[in-house]
Amino acid sequence: MAELTLYIGNRSYSSWSLRPWLALKHAGAEFDEVVIPLRAPGVRTLEIQRHSPSGKVPALKHGALTIWESLAIAEYVAESFPDAKLWPEARDARAVARAVSAEMASSFAALRTALPMNVRRKIQGVAITEAASQDIARVQAIWNDCRSRFGQGGEFLFGRFSVADAMYAPVATRFDTYGVELDAVSQRYVASILALPAMQEWIAKAKEEPHIIEAYEAIGVVGK
Amino acid sequence: MAELTLYIGNRSYSSWSLRPWLALKHAGAEFDEVVIPLRAPGVRTLEIQRHSPSGKVPALKHGALTIWESLAIAEYVAESFPDAKLWPEARDARAVARAVSAEMASSFAALRTALPMNVRRKIQGVAITEAASQDIARVQAIWNDCRSRFGQGGEFLFGRFSVADAMYAPVATRFDTYGVELDAVSQRYVASILALPAMQEWIAKAKEEPHIIEAYEAIGVVGK
Repeated sequence: MAELTLYIGNRSYSSWSLRPWLALKHAGAEFDEVVIPLRAPGVRTLEIQRHSPSGKVPALKHGALTIWESLAIAEYVAESFPDAKLWPEARDARAVARAVSAEMASSFAALRTALPMNVRRKIQGVAITEAASQDIARVQAIWNDCRSRFGQGGEFLFGRFSVADAMYAPVATRFDTYGVELDAVSQRYVASILALPAMQEWIAKAKEEPHIIEAYEAIGVVGK
Repeated sequence: MAELTLYIGNRSYSSWSLRPWLALKHAGAEFDEVVIPLRAPGVRTLEIQRHSPSGKVPALKHGALTIWESLAIAEYVAESFPDAKLWPEARDARAVARAVSAEMASSFAALRTALPMNVRRKIQGVAITEAASQDIARVQAIWNDCRSRFGQGGEFLFGRFSVADAMYAPVATRFDTYGVELDAVSQRYVASILALPAMQEWIAKAKEEPHIIEAYEAIGVVGK
């Protein structure tokens, strides 16, 4: 058994779980994964509460220590595996990487509600609300800004893969799943995220999962 | 003019602005403050967009660098003023401090909507929704957990004042403003936050501000 255990939700839908999982993978960490199937959107089961004090996945256990919240787990992984350079090394880039990561963690509720992560599928014809459109525009503005100011030396937001990419990876999969029209920079960035071996591994494991949440699968079905 | 400038909303209502302001104060940083009056809940004015790429306050400028999102600003202040020890020094405590800080930044929407920050006033008789009650219970659980596990050596969540206290300070003022019934540990913690000289300075400055947002002032008025 590894020293580290990451408790995650269904891989198909749990965007928050994907974030620290990618950070751990990028760090080359050995860790066990425990999937706690979510039954329905937003349900905080007793099983989750047993492992996460906030009642939400993901949670990382390291011996007796439990850490929750994607961003806090990512900070812990960055500290624990400094060679992985999970934050940009330059002070300004690191500050902006933390800003866009925190903005992802605290914002985009309309986008998340309208286009829930569903990495097993391609779904056509979903009507996108005005609020979700504004979120999509803001995400693209962030990606363009980071790529143009800090993206030299790699294909990710700050060049090399960083926590910021782990935070936005679930959004990249949503844009792919729902066929959202994107500018050229954002299209290339989505392709880079999807091509990550770790991302492909996550999607492959998601396809092996039996769990289905009807509320998510019904999105895009005519009449819903 | 100081090297650092913090752009904030109305001090009475802008809970997000208070957080990095407290971190800067605790660090002993010299900084200019620019208040951008908010007209109504959630409005993103052009004036804010000029200073903050997300269209939200707060934003910190350090020379040509702009940092937004309270938590990212707090991380930047912690890095820039290491002597202030804005994060706990012990690894486990620091990890949990980041978890509770991130949880504050990403959660408690019901509490924030039901009981908006309003540091100038005491407001009686506000009906608290079930969802807000659950948020209030979770905040108290966090405070009790941090105080009992990490609070030795001080009156704050991790003993000495940390970013976690800056993040929860606006909630402490809400509990005071609306007279929310609290357990003994939480009552003492609210008193410690309110007694901070920086907190008193913020409240005094708020009382000098002319700005009024009717939607917030109407809360608790009979019939609303």
